[in-house]
Amino acid sequence: MAETEMKQVIGDGASPQTIAVNQGILSKNDLFAARNRARFKASGLLVLNVVSSPGSGKTAFIERTLTDLQGRLRGGVIVGDLATDNDAQRIARSGAPAIQITTGDMCHLEAEMVGKAAGQLNLDNLDLLIVENVGNLVCPSGYDLGEDLRVVLLSVTEGEDKPLKYPVMFKTADVVIVNKMDLAEAVGFDRTTALDNIRRIAPQATVFEVSARTGLGMHEWYAFLEQRIGRQ
Amino acid sequence: MAETEMKQVIGDGASPQTIAVNQGILSKNDLFAARNRARFKASGLLVLNVVSSPGSGKTAFIERTLTDLQGRLRGGVIVGDLATDNDAQRIARSGAPAIQITTGDMCHLEAEMVGKAAGQLNLDNLDLLIVENVGNLVCPSGYDLGEDLRVVLLSVTEGEDKPLKYPVMFKTADVVIVNKMDLAEAVGFDRTTALDNIRRIAPQATVFEVSARTGLGMHEWYAFLEQRIGRQ
Repeated sequence: MAETEMKQVIGDGASPQTIAVNQGILSKNDLFAARNRARFKASGLLVLNVVSSPGSGKTAFIERTLTDLQGRLRGGVIVGDLATDNDAQRIARSGAPAIQITTGDMCHLEAEMVGKAAGQLNLDNLDLLIVENVGNLVCPSGYDLGEDLRVVLLSVTEGEDKPLKYPVMFKTADVVIVNKMDLAEAVGFDRTTALDNIRRIAPQATVFEVSARTGLGMHEWYAFLEQRIGRQ
Repeated sequence: MAETEMKQVIGDGASPQTIAVNQGILSKNDLFAARNRARFKASGLLVLNVVSSPGSGKTAFIERTLTDLQGRLRGGVIVGDLATDNDAQRIARSGAPAIQITTGDMCHLEAEMVGKAAGQLNLDNLDLLIVENVGNLVCPSGYDLGEDLRVVLLSVTEGEDKPLKYPVMFKTADVVIVNKMDLAEAVGFDRTTALDNIRRIAPQATVFEVSARTGLGMHEWYAFLEQRIGRQ
């Protein structure tokens, strides 16, 4: 992760003289991430860091996952947004505890914020902690939050070329969710090209094709999740 | 703009000790932006900075605009992406000159890059220069490129709440384009709520509802563009 993080922040800062300072900041994030990871492990939790563009359907995907798995696992959510607590309110409808972080102008969550928010949840009572990152296909890639799995969502309405055009994020994905498959035909989604592009940039990732709205393909995702939780 | 830019970069850096350094960088961007603006004005050009999430349809919107207005105005394009020159290739099919900037891990264009790319175009032969920014609803908001109009795209598939959740970008919009209106019914788009949210965050913006795919609503946009070009 170190190199990716470094590049990301050099990119944001765009000036050689910021490198040393940002290196310090990133090490600090890595320290907090390691602390989160140890704490999550001690509680036997599976932790997901869910990232995507704005509007790919992260909140709907998390909402449906927690609603459908009610009674089978105990989930909690930490939600990051620049503004509003709309998403935490939506997720709370599933009955899962949800903590909202509002970041102001910041386009990603950092490990320290997640650690603080996790302190408001009873982690020992949970099997699954889902962190919904700020909607952004670039910034969150360089920030380890202490998660077990990085889950990148891509909706069919965004086009097949996105893995090629945003490789930094896709290269760090453990799971890629192709969402809104119910709209594939209406938008002329070229499935073969999209899957080829995902495999080319993210050969390490497990891929699920779903519709969080209709429930299509969600059962395969639940089976994967429950198997991973069994291993924690 | 100065305050927004400042906040943006503090957000990215997330540490008080980076403030002074980033202030220097931002002033440098403002200087390059002012230089671009003077050069564009001298050439009698209208310059657009087109921003949105990945997959909102910026390239299709620009392609269609230039194709439909062929023979009526002379357009050129500068395209920013993290990787690939797919978009410049698509736009070149409209016959307009297109320069691709690949930014690596950087989630926005800066004025200096745009100035360099503009040097590769014969500006005196153009009426309209469209800069397609990197697909990102956060990072580009703090970087003035020397444009006349900031055009923010939002597609109906992204949801009605995006202006509320990404206010920084929408607050700086001169024009908001609601794209993919042909899919509005299929995705259950709530037009009234979306327009209310746009007006609440961006009361200064002129709003167009279009489909770059079907051509719906594009003529109102062209009339607006041609009127603005007449004024340059």
